[in-house]
Amino acid sequence: MNAPSPGFTLGPNSYGKSGVRLVRVDRDTPRHAIRDLTVHTALSGDLDATHYSGDNTGVLPTDTQKNTVYALARDGVGAVEAFAERLARHFVDTTPSITHARVRIEEHPWTRVGDHSFTRGEGGERRTAEAAYGGAGAAVTAGIRDLLLLNTTDSEFTGFLVNEFTTLPETDDRILATAVAADWDYTTAPADYDQAFQSARAALLEAFADTYSLSLQQTLYAVGERILKTVPEAGEVRLSLPNRHHYLLDLGRFGLDNPGVVFQAGDLPYGLIEGAVRREAP
Amino acid sequence: MNAPSPGFTLGPNSYGKSGVRLVRVDRDTPRHAIRDLTVHTALSGDLDATHYSGDNTGVLPTDTQKNTVYALARDGVGAVEAFAERLARHFVDTTPSITHARVRIEEHPWTRVGDHSFTRGEGGERRTAEAAYGGAGAAVTAGIRDLLLLNTTDSEFTGFLVNEFTTLPETDDRILATAVAADWDYTTAPADYDQAFQSARAALLEAFADTYSLSLQQTLYAVGERILKTVPEAGEVRLSLPNRHHYLLDLGRFGLDNPGVVFQAGDLPYGLIEGAVRREAP
Amino acid sequence: MNAPSPGFTLGPNSYGKSGVRLVRVDRDTPRHAIRDLTVHTALSGDLDATHYSGDNTGVLPTDTQKNTVYALARDGVGAVEAFAERLARHFVDTTPSITHARVRIEEHPWTRVGDHSFTRGEGGERRTAEAAYGGAGAAVTAGIRDLLLLNTTDSEFTGFLVNEFTTLPETDDRILATAVAADWDYTTAPADYDQAFQSARAALLEAFADTYSLSLQQTLYAVGERILKTVPEAGEVRLSLPNRHHYLLDLGRFGLDNPGVVFQAGDLPYGLIEGAVRREAP
Amino acid sequence: MNAPSPGFTLGPNSYGKSGVRLVRVDRDTPRHAIRDLTVHTALSGDLDATHYSGDNTGVLPTDTQKNTVYALARDGVGAVEAFAERLARHFVDTTPSITHARVRIEEHPWTRVGDHSFTRGEGGERRTAEAAYGGAGAAVTAGIRDLLLLNTTDSEFTGFLVNEFTTLPETDDRILATAVAADWDYTTAPADYDQAFQSARAALLEAFADTYSLSLQQTLYAVGERILKTVPEAGEVRLSLPNRHHYLLDLGRFGLDNPGVVFQAGDLPYGLIEGAVRREAP
Repeated sequence: MNAPSPGFTLGPNSYGKSGVRLVRVDRDTPRHAIRDLTVHTALSGDLDATHYSGDNTGVLPTDTQKNTVYALARDGVGAVEAFAERLARHFVDTTPSITHARVRIEEHPWTRVGDHSFTRGEGGERRTAEAAYGGAGAAVTAGIRDLLLLNTTDSEFTGFLVNEFTTLPETDDRILATAVAADWDYTTAPADYDQAFQSARAALLEAFADTYSLSLQQTLYAVGERILKTVPEAGEVRLSLPNRHHYLLDLGRFGLDNPGVVFQAGDLPYGLIEGAVRREAP
Repeated sequence: MNAPSPGFTLGPNSYGKSGVRLVRVDRDTPRHAIRDLTVHTALSGDLDATHYSGDNTGVLPTDTQKNTVYALARDGVGAVEAFAERLARHFVDTTPSITHARVRIEEHPWTRVGDHSFTRGEGGERRTAEAAYGGAGAAVTAGIRDLLLLNTTDSEFTGFLVNEFTTLPETDDRILATAVAADWDYTTAPADYDQAFQSARAALLEAFADTYSLSLQQTLYAVGERILKTVPEAGEVRLSLPNRHHYLLDLGRFGLDNPGVVFQAGDLPYGLIEGAVRREAP
Repeated sequence: MNAPSPGFTLGPNSYGKSGVRLVRVDRDTPRHAIRDLTVHTALSGDLDATHYSGDNTGVLPTDTQKNTVYALARDGVGAVEAFAERLARHFVDTTPSITHARVRIEEHPWTRVGDHSFTRGEGGERRTAEAAYGGAGAAVTAGIRDLLLLNTTDSEFTGFLVNEFTTLPETDDRILATAVAADWDYTTAPADYDQAFQSARAALLEAFADTYSLSLQQTLYAVGERILKTVPEAGEVRLSLPNRHHYLLDLGRFGLDNPGVVFQAGDLPYGLIEGAVRREAP
Repeated sequence: MNAPSPGFTLGPNSYGKSGVRLVRVDRDTPRHAIRDLTVHTALSGDLDATHYSGDNTGVLPTDTQKNTVYALARDGVGAVEAFAERLARHFVDTTPSITHARVRIEEHPWTRVGDHSFTRGEGGERRTAEAAYGGAGAAVTAGIRDLLLLNTTDSEFTGFLVNEFTTLPETDDRILATAVAADWDYTTAPADYDQAFQSARAALLEAFADTYSLSLQQTLYAVGERILKTVPEAGEVRLSLPNRHHYLLDLGRFGLDNPGVVFQAGDLPYGLIEGAVRREAP
């Protein structure tokens, strides 16, 4: 193996296959079921040689990683968290040069419209899972992406800091809208990942809907705490909540009132509120 | 007004505002309702002067068109087809220099999760409407975009033309998946645009699900005919159906069978099947 | 062949392969060249049987169309207009059931940084070509997509129509910015398609830069006429010019002036100006 | 201030404005210049109260952050790294409740086509900068996004690990293509950020073009080391290199050879190679 130039060295690194599109059909009965996944793998290990000199002896090609995803799906996929962990363990446990694997999965949820027919909107909400494994226990995270939520009332924003660049007026009734990205870590595996996910999602929707919001930060905290209270196996929730601004239009220019009914949905820029909620160490 | 250079002339033209984002909240009762729309306007008329010499006397600015969308929403929006027609008529009937208007609307459907709380996935299926008005009756079209449909079985593709570039094998059982873009013209206005839309959408889903497909073209025709049979006010349906290929993986390389259970969802390229179905003149 | 239900009939239709990604490398000398294309095919003909009953006897599969694109590229691609025409003619001339073909191509332009090394930005401007062939002469169109242009001055917008919904002030100095989509039809084939394209593109840039603009419509006409004057083989130019608004910020609220220097680039909504410029019949 | 529920607590958090679109025109001479930026701010500090109880006393609204970006641009923007640092310092130094600021900027590069006219492709390569400031010295990072690079030869991939899921053949001549995302940290500020960026970018292109590649990892390391050697103020380079696969087509099925000339550009899935290169501690 060659060495790097004196004075330089390789830092943290990983490699894998992204965007592996897997559709697994369960045809055991005439009432088929499907799981539609996009899988991303990332492996690390003793890989200095390929970086310094192109010696690929320890490199499990990303093409083989892709094949592995499809081959392991033959036995069934199950919950995405479990499939991510199964893949991560497989790569590390069967490849001496690979010491750490991280597998992320996005699931595209379909709605049944018949025994073998399904529908969904293009894009749409996705369920996510991630498993990281380095030889000891796996770290498993579940999540949601692109879940839009909107309250037409019960949202204020007042009492904020004012300085020479302030132009925003206070408001005691506004639309509050966001596109949720949420991740929660499991400190222990729940009995049923699918059911735990559904509980977390329901808690998220309920907390957003029933929190009278004085700030999006307050809503963020309320949502995170509610998920932790609902899913005892979750230890930390991380939320990224863009504030999808809806501007109340001044129709007085046209001789019309606007009692909170006509809004312009804003695009750019948008607020972005991010934070974690944790279970406190006892 | 200046003239163009000799030997050149202006051809067909229009101008308008695209991407007008309107959210209309109905707060008449504590159980709020919303319509979330993206509106596009396009006006034509006696506009040679602005093209040839920048004489804007006849130009209703696109900014004013945007304001008009918001102002007319004050009274309520109703069905998107009706709102599109109302806007198109307004522009022509109140602006002497404008002789023709086309208004397109996309509606982003929200699902209720509380009295004033709603959810949807980012992106997702959209309902569309278009009204074109030139002083006589308005031409109204309804439609759908980005509605994904997938059948796990009951789809074959055999008996096709073979030449020296053929490599595709025949198949008697494949996944059939598409992202529907559909438009149907109303020859007369239905009593209730919202209900007519829901009937057309249901017919579309049913026809896709219950058609045993020998080609995506056959499915296209079946879907179009079913919509026309279900919605008597519709005169023509136009469908654009990308064939979202799902490739059955050869797991035999790994000592595994694959009885129609593990598929790679393809991205590019994709087939694209487009066609119209019409009610025949009696 | 089955018939449709009484009272219904098939309308206009086509089918083909979209998104065929072809990279053709010319390695004849150590100084390699590349053409990076996305090809879309659309065929029509005697295809009632596949629509009505799934009889695919006349169907040249889209997979075979894709193979044909790659096979015909073996001999070299040349100008995209010529390759589109060659493909369109091939499909019609070698397939009895196919009577009409339309082939669209997008070219992604790379910049040389070495004998066999190239660079470009993700996305970016594309050159387009389309050929339609029905057995007689082919109709060939060239074009450009996603070419952004911006003038920091020499643009006014005044003297427009005012009504009760007008709020836009007149301006005698604004930023004018757009993302050009242009198409021009060739009435006769130029001697060199690549050179004709470069001439048209240069004319487009020059006309945008040197036109003192009183409206984007005026700029549109000037650009179209300039292309026709520069490329004698072009008979009509169609332009779609979104008005990428740049809003001058009111910094007076902060005790600052803003002499045309600080702008907010708008996103949605945007104006959309579309029109054709034609060579007049003599 | 209210407290969270017993057993729960707020974790790391920040908030800010994303997607602030700023175009700064320099009109000091008739030869105008522009900088076209998208700015993202993220502030942290003593913000428990807004999360626990909606007490916004310490919250500088994201709307005010946006206004600040525009107001500070009045004096000129300069290099994006310097503007990011200036903004980050301003937020912390003028707002007692804010103890940390992170400002990211993307610059969209325009090419001059006249004294006041500019062009670029939609999307395209972007220059990035980030400054993080917590009261002591600022940490400044520069970078590039969406810079596509392609070598038509001088790339092999052989000698890799083989297992039961291997199907990839070895190759001694392939296309190597990627979309570079690069970030490098400045340990000391260079005399001229713009010039340092241009040197880093040139080093990146040269290293990609002149490295005979045995693996994309090797190219990654070579590129990173070259940047560090070229820009002495940079202490670490992080690279994320998707492997944009180009598949050599088997034209033998059609009686044609394919000596490295006809390729299918792949989309999904893609390899993803990520790694850091560091200057070693002496």
